Amino acid sequence: MNLYQKIATELEKQIKNGTYRFGDRLPSVRKLHRETGLSISTVLQAMYLLEAKGLVEARPKRGYFVTYHPKQSAASPVIYHPTNKEGSEDIEEVIQQVYGQSDREDQHINFAVGVPSAKMLPIARLKKMVRETMLALPDACVHYESISGNAYLRRQVAQRTSLWGNGLSPDDLVTTTGCMNAVAIALMSITKKGDCILTESPVYFGTLQLAKSLGLKVQEMPTHGEYGLDLEEIKNTIKHDQIAAIVLVSNFSNPLGYCMSAQSKRALVKICTNHQVPLIEEDLYSDVYFGSERPLPCKSHDRDGIVLWCSSVSKTLAPGYRVGWIAPGKYKDSILKTKLYHQVASPSLSHEVVARFMDKGRYDNHLRQLRIALHHNLLKYLQIIQEYFPENTKTTFPNGGFLLWIELDPRIDTLQLYEPALNLGIKYAPGRIFTLRDQYKNCLRLSFGLDWNEQTATALTRLGLLLQHQLVNY
Amino acid sequence: MNLYQKIATELEKQIKNGTYRFGDRLPSVRKLHRETGLSISTVLQAMYLLEAKGLVEARPKRGYFVTYHPKQSAASPVIYHPTNKEGSEDIEEVIQQVYGQSDREDQHINFAVGVPSAKMLPIARLKKMVRETMLALPDACVHYESISGNAYLRRQVAQRTSLWGNGLSPDDLVTTTGCMNAVAIALMSITKKGDCILTESPVYFGTLQLAKSLGLKVQEMPTHGEYGLDLEEIKNTIKHDQIAAIVLVSNFSNPLGYCMSAQSKRALVKICTNHQVPLIEEDLYSDVYFGSERPLPCKSHDRDGIVLWCSSVSKTLAPGYRVGWIAPGKYKDSILKTKLYHQVASPSLSHEVVARFMDKGRYDNHLRQLRIALHHNLLKYLQIIQEYFPENTKTTFPNGGFLLWIELDPRIDTLQLYEPALNLGIKYAPGRIFTLRDQYKNCLRLSFGLDWNEQTATALTRLGLLLQHQLVNY
Repeated sequence: MNLYQKIATELEKQIKNGTYRFGDRLPSVRKLHRETGLSISTVLQAMYLLEAKGLVEARPKRGYFVTYHPKQSAASPVIYHPTNKEGSEDIEEVIQQVYGQSDREDQHINFAVGVPSAKMLPIARLKKMVRETMLALPDACVHYESISGNAYLRRQVAQRTSLWGNGLSPDDLVTTTGCMNAVAIALMSITKKGDCILTESPVYFGTLQLAKSLGLKVQEMPTHGEYGLDLEEIKNTIKHDQIAAIVLVSNFSNPLGYCMSAQSKRALVKICTNHQVPLIEEDLYSDVYFGSERPLPCKSHDRDGIVLWCSSVSKTLAPGYRVGWIAPGKYKDSILKTKLYHQVASPSLSHEVVARFMDKGRYDNHLRQLRIALHHNLLKYLQIIQEYFPENTKTTFPNGGFLLWIELDPRIDTLQLYEPALNLGIKYAPGRIFTLRDQYKNCLRLSFGLDWNEQTATALTRLGLLLQHQLVNY
Repeated sequence: MNLYQKIATELEKQIKNGTYRFGDRLPSVRKLHRETGLSISTVLQAMYLLEAKGLVEARPKRGYFVTYHPKQSAASPVIYHPTNKEGSEDIEEVIQQVYGQSDREDQHINFAVGVPSAKMLPIARLKKMVRETMLALPDACVHYESISGNAYLRRQVAQRTSLWGNGLSPDDLVTTTGCMNAVAIALMSITKKGDCILTESPVYFGTLQLAKSLGLKVQEMPTHGEYGLDLEEIKNTIKHDQIAAIVLVSNFSNPLGYCMSAQSKRALVKICTNHQVPLIEEDLYSDVYFGSERPLPCKSHDRDGIVLWCSSVSKTLAPGYRVGWIAPGKYKDSILKTKLYHQVASPSLSHEVVARFMDKGRYDNHLRQLRIALHHNLLKYLQIIQEYFPENTKTTFPNGGFLLWIELDPRIDTLQLYEPALNLGIKYAPGRIFTLRDQYKNCLRLSFGLDWNEQTATALTRLGLLLQHQLVNY
């Protein structure tokens, strides 16, 4: 860590623990310079960083003021217990309503989208990389790749796991057409119709849809908003029931945004290993962490090959490129077969471009900026939610990713409010689509991967007022 | 048709019907000029075309001589009846042995490959197109496409169906990650575990593998080497048994290379419509026809939406790009869902590039050259087979594509000969992998999509001698 990062981290901690509160003025740059012995420019850099994160703002000739509200962290949801009652709504229909249209044609402020805004993606640098790739490669990538997939990409991904202590080799990896495709291939390879899988609750609706299309039963498990799956419950369930696999997002989960602790991850891998239940781990948000380092996946604790680690660059670089991969552990043979039978090979061109983008250091450069932008957005969102959403609103406080889970007063039904919100030009993901059970109707998921501008701020404010209005009229 | 094409076609007909035989001299250019009234240069163009097709060769100062042997067409296989006996061999293992390695690393003369040689593909023009695409598009294709897929590509594909009389609209199409992926999505959408599907016999082994992985039973049907599936048998079977779908390659089938007549296609679609059995039609070779026009698919006769037409550019332009599509008829809703759940979207970049390549006329330009090159190769192959393969060898005579099916003396076992051929540096696809039954052991499939050069000719000759040797030692 540089000196300016150190002092910024120190100030951030004090802002978050309430030493400096919303509206307080921070010590002046000159004062910090005198007291710390650091140069003026170092102190200024620290301030710029805090400003970029949305924690403070500069007021001309007056100094830096805190713009961060801490209240929401006290009011975050605790643990969700799936109900026994099956939901009556056809969530397919709701999902179709929310996601049926192409996002690009959509004129709404769309808090439902699952990818960061185009303005946060390094489009010019990607275009340049595509052209460079064409100049560098004699064959324009026209050939079928090997079944494992592009070796350059697998090498780059393996290099990115070197901090695990138990890093992967290129041979441990198989490329896929995105992360969801990795999960689909995994489920097709290791489960059969009628099997039961365990998931978080609430859980990403795509997992529910995929499981249904494969004829799998889904048992949603109690999930803590901050720590993730309840491991005791997991252990009990797989002791007594026949479970074909566990599917989860370990880092900055979708929709809850929690990040499992390293200890929990290790414990879960141990449970899975002891009972020989494969763990399908989706790890597609961990590159956008807001803390000091990237959280490691469950896979990093896997000695027995029980974890099928699935990831992609769809949430961080180029959704449309369909560049994903899986480290399938001991299931590699059947994963390769399923991939071959269903797709023959991965799309060569985009996989090569992304490998190069990683190799030249441009992916890491981009991630640094993306992390700051997303963290900044999160804090801005929390400020507005604090200010304009109903009194007893609870929000998660994700330490990465770009998804925020909001639990509202139990009298509010976000399915019913979807239409009125749409009329205000606002789209969100209603909580009900994240379960097959009869619950989460008072919840919603917001993406903070949108551009932060006046329109976004206004839309979020209006959504808050709509919710308040609903409550008043109850 | 131009004048030079007309006269070339006339001469080709006479060569093929034996008016001019192997070694005969054609009428001189001067004589043809006098008798037809065509200019010298037009007659020469006709000769160049015949030469490019491998039918004649020029000898300096002597004129043009026929290099084409007609004998093989008399000795083509007739109809294949699947046996009742299940095969005992593990064809998975054989397939792995033949296709397990990446083709690019392979040092053998590989007659087993399923794509044309790189030298036949327009790599420089594709590279240019990728660069042009990057310059033309502001967003580098980073976004998720709509679920149906790239609209530009769907428009181009729809335009290519305008000769059908009953052409498709872009809305009739859904893009996929290659043709096999289209078939996989189709089978996942309209069948369930335990269902039975009908296929040709012999049948592309990828279809057998896919069906097995989905838990489907496969009933191979009697198939004619020239006309395709026996429609009477089809009708009888679907009258009496519960059949979930028929899967076939209607144009220049794999491996037999036959092309169903328009009449057969119409009849098959009628049978399927009457019995409401969906027809999954793989149509991925019809762009490389050797006749005067592209044969139409079964889909062109489909009024009821019973045909799921699957195609791609993998066999003609860029295997690695994974650009395919499906016109799913009345099954569109479930096709879209399966695609979404398993892959979210198609790879945007390569789909956009191929759409542009089609739009700018470069695909058609390329196809013209590819057709001539492949036809030329076919004739060269047939000459060598005629000359060096055992006396009672039968070959198909495909009028398109690049796959040749060879039936040898029943005493020859191409599985047993695989290893000895490998030692000669030669790979082929043994007939046994194209069925689950106990048959086709005296058959093999050769690709004539290789570069035609001395090495290829020598390898093919050696293969023939190996077979002869085997027979002598029997």
